[in-house]
Amino acid sequence: MRLSRKVVAFVRAARVAHLATADGAGQPHVIPICFVLDGEEILSPIDEKPKQNPPRGLKRLRNIGENPKIALLIDRYEEDWRKLAYVLVIGTAKVLLRGKRHERAIGLLRRKYPQYRSMALQKRPIIRISPTRAVSWAFSKAN
Amino acid sequence: MRLSRKVVAFVRAARVAHLATADGAGQPHVIPICFVLDGEEILSPIDEKPKQNPPRGLKRLRNIGENPKIALLIDRYEEDWRKLAYVLVIGTAKVLLRGKRHERAIGLLRRKYPQYRSMALQKRPIIRISPTRAVSWAFSKAN
Repeated sequence: MRLSRKVVAFVRAARVAHLATADGAGQPHVIPICFVLDGEEILSPIDEKPKQNPPRGLKRLRNIGENPKIALLIDRYEEDWRKLAYVLVIGTAKVLLRGKRHERAIGLLRRKYPQYRSMALQKRPIIRISPTRAVSWAFSKAN
Repeated sequence: MRLSRKVVAFVRAARVAHLATADGAGQPHVIPICFVLDGEEILSPIDEKPKQNPPRGLKRLRNIGENPKIALLIDRYEEDWRKLAYVLVIGTAKVLLRGKRHERAIGLLRRKYPQYRSMALQKRPIIRISPTRAVSWAFSKAN
């Protein structure tokens, strides 16, 4: 997967992405996620946000267990549609529970999101996405 | 499907949603869409935006043809995570090519998005989503 420098900058700058999974019966699911790009991988925590309510965040974990195929979208919406843009990543996901990569992901996430510095991410799963291809699109080529 | 007045207001106010589909092999796909809520249905056009590039927008139509199950997310991201919120709609999608509902959808879309007033939506498909259930979530109950 080769992304242009411009696309990588767009992905790195995004604060939120949308992760689509599907269960074994082909029912899609989509959720906003926080993430970091680390080389060619994308890492996203199951954080404390869902604790306020029943753990719906776990649906994505169940889906990944049944079917590791995912799609991840990073996009920009503006009322001036000439500024619309997105990057769609197709790949597979795996759940990390501990280990070096898990630890490294937490460091990167805390660097990007100060909000995570006070959350106990160590004990929480990290979703590791391995992209197989990416498509980038912009309404206007100038943007 | 019963949505609270607050949830309906949140969905109506949103300018963009994220539509997840999956193909017959369970590969998810997700794309930003413009939409209107009409009673219990959600309507979204295949508009002229993708014309600038090869018609990737058609992937969602192919997926719906293979598998009508969809998920649609309307969410709000803010750096103050107490303001995070989303509504996740699970349902099925159908593609409308013409007819009364198609015509009505175009009128509603043009009312919501002035950008559509100069686009020839009449000749383009409309995706009609029939929700079967919806889940709403907010990080903070106060928001």
